[in-house]
Amino acid sequence: MLTLYHFWSSTCSRRVRICLAEKQIEWQSRHVDIAKKMEQLEPWYQKLNANGVVPTIDHDGNLVIESNIIIQYLDEAFPGPSLTPEDPLKRARMRELFDRFEQVVHANINVISYNRRHLPRVQHLSDDERRAMIMKKGDADKRRIMLERLQHGVSEEDEARAEARLANVLDELEAMLDGRDWLLGDDFSLADISIAPFIERFEANRLDRLVDFSVRPRLGTWWTRLQARAGFREAYAFTDPDAPDA
Amino acid sequence: MLTLYHFWSSTCSRRVRICLAEKQIEWQSRHVDIAKKMEQLEPWYQKLNANGVVPTIDHDGNLVIESNIIIQYLDEAFPGPSLTPEDPLKRARMRELFDRFEQVVHANINVISYNRRHLPRVQHLSDDERRAMIMKKGDADKRRIMLERLQHGVSEEDEARAEARLANVLDELEAMLDGRDWLLGDDFSLADISIAPFIERFEANRLDRLVDFSVRPRLGTWWTRLQARAGFREAYAFTDPDAPDA
Repeated sequence: MLTLYHFWSSTCSRRVRICLAEKQIEWQSRHVDIAKKMEQLEPWYQKLNANGVVPTIDHDGNLVIESNIIIQYLDEAFPGPSLTPEDPLKRARMRELFDRFEQVVHANINVISYNRRHLPRVQHLSDDERRAMIMKKGDADKRRIMLERLQHGVSEEDEARAEARLANVLDELEAMLDGRDWLLGDDFSLADISIAPFIERFEANRLDRLVDFSVRPRLGTWWTRLQARAGFREAYAFTDPDAPDA
Repeated sequence: MLTLYHFWSSTCSRRVRICLAEKQIEWQSRHVDIAKKMEQLEPWYQKLNANGVVPTIDHDGNLVIESNIIIQYLDEAFPGPSLTPEDPLKRARMRELFDRFEQVVHANINVISYNRRHLPRVQHLSDDERRAMIMKKGDADKRRIMLERLQHGVSEEDEARAEARLANVLDELEAMLDGRDWLLGDDFSLADISIAPFIERFEANRLDRLVDFSVRPRLGTWWTRLQARAGFREAYAFTDPDAPDA
C-alpha cells in the first residue's frame, strides 16, 4: 500500500504525482492542507516529515521524504519502464539537475511566490499569529528564513534577482536540449519530471519572460511534448479536493 | 584518465578521496589552492565548476561536480565492491542522508568555520579586496551569503545555533547505528564516506561537545571503525603539497 501525503497544487507534490502516473503505480491520497490549515506544520505531520513540507510517501509502513528522492525510490522500487538512464554519466547529470532544481529553481521560485501565493494565504492572521505559525516549524534553518521574510518581506529587487537566477537555469536546459527530445537524451527521465511542475508554475505566476518560448524554442517544444504525456495530464487532473465545487 | 581538482584539507575533497581509495581507482591530482590564491574563483576553474567550489572530477574529458554526486558516479562507473545498497529503501535513506549532510551539516559547519578558518585566510586583504574576491563568484545566491557574512560577520549566537543543528544530525546518526556497524546496515557505504570528513572537522575545530562520544557511544565506535579503514587513512595521507616542508 502506498499513501501519498501531498497538496494538490504544490510543485513537489506534482513532481511525485507525475512519476506515480508514468510508472502506473496505484496510490491513495492523504491531502495535506498547506494553504489554509498549514497542516504540514502540525506535530503529527512533522513526525512523518521532519522538514515539515509536502510530499511524503508511506510505502508499506516505510516513509520516504524529499520529492527528488521519492521519485528515485518509486522508479527503483516499482516495475515498469525505468525512468533513470543506465549510463553512469547520465545518472550524474540527472543528479546535478536535481541539485540545481532544488537549490536554485525551488529556492528562487519560493522568493517569487511569497507575495503572490504565500502571503495571501495568511492574510487573515495577525503578525503575531503568523510568527506563532512559523515557530511550529521544526527545521531551525528554514524557520529563520521564514521569520526573516515575515519581517522584511520580499522586495521587487529580490524578485528580479530570483527571476534572473531562474532564467540562468532555463538557459542551461535550452543548451542541453540541443538535438535531443528530453533533458538526458532520447529517453524521457526523472529529470524531465523533476522540472516540469516548475515550468508550469512560471506560467501560473505569469513570469512571462521565463516562458516566452520564442527566446528558448527547444524548451518550448520540449514543454509541449511533456504536457502531451498521459502521465502529466493525470497528475494535473488531481484538483483541490476541498474546493467548494469539488 | 581521472583527474581530481581538489584541496588537501577540504571536507568535500576528502569525501571524494576516501571513495577513490575505497574503490582503488587511480587518479591524478590537480591541487586547487582555495586558501591563499582562491583559485576556485578563477574563471578557468568556474568554467569547469559553475558553483566555484572544490572538488570537480574530469573523467576521460567528462566533468562531474558536487562531491555526493561524484562519489555516486565513481561507485557506478568503476568496478570493485559496490558502496551503494541494493535495496531501494536503503538507497532512499542514503540519499536522504546526503541531503542532510549537505543542507544541514555542510551549511552549518561553514558558519562555524568562518571565524576559525575562513577569515584568517583573507586577513592580509582589505575589505575592498575581500569584496572584489567574492564578486568573482559566479553563483549569485552564494555570493549574497558571502557578502552578508563579510558585512555582518558570524556571531557567537550564530555559531551556537549552528552547533545545535549539527548536534541534531549526530543524534539521528546515533539512533541509526543501533545494532548496526555502518549507517545503512552491515555494509560500509557511501553514506559513511559522505559524513566522515565532517566528523573529523568537528574534531579539528575543537567542537568538543559534538565529538564527546560518551554522549553518543555508537557513533564513537563507528568513528573508530571508520578511521581504521585503509581507504580513510589513504585519503588523509594526502597533505598540503604547498606546505614549506612538503
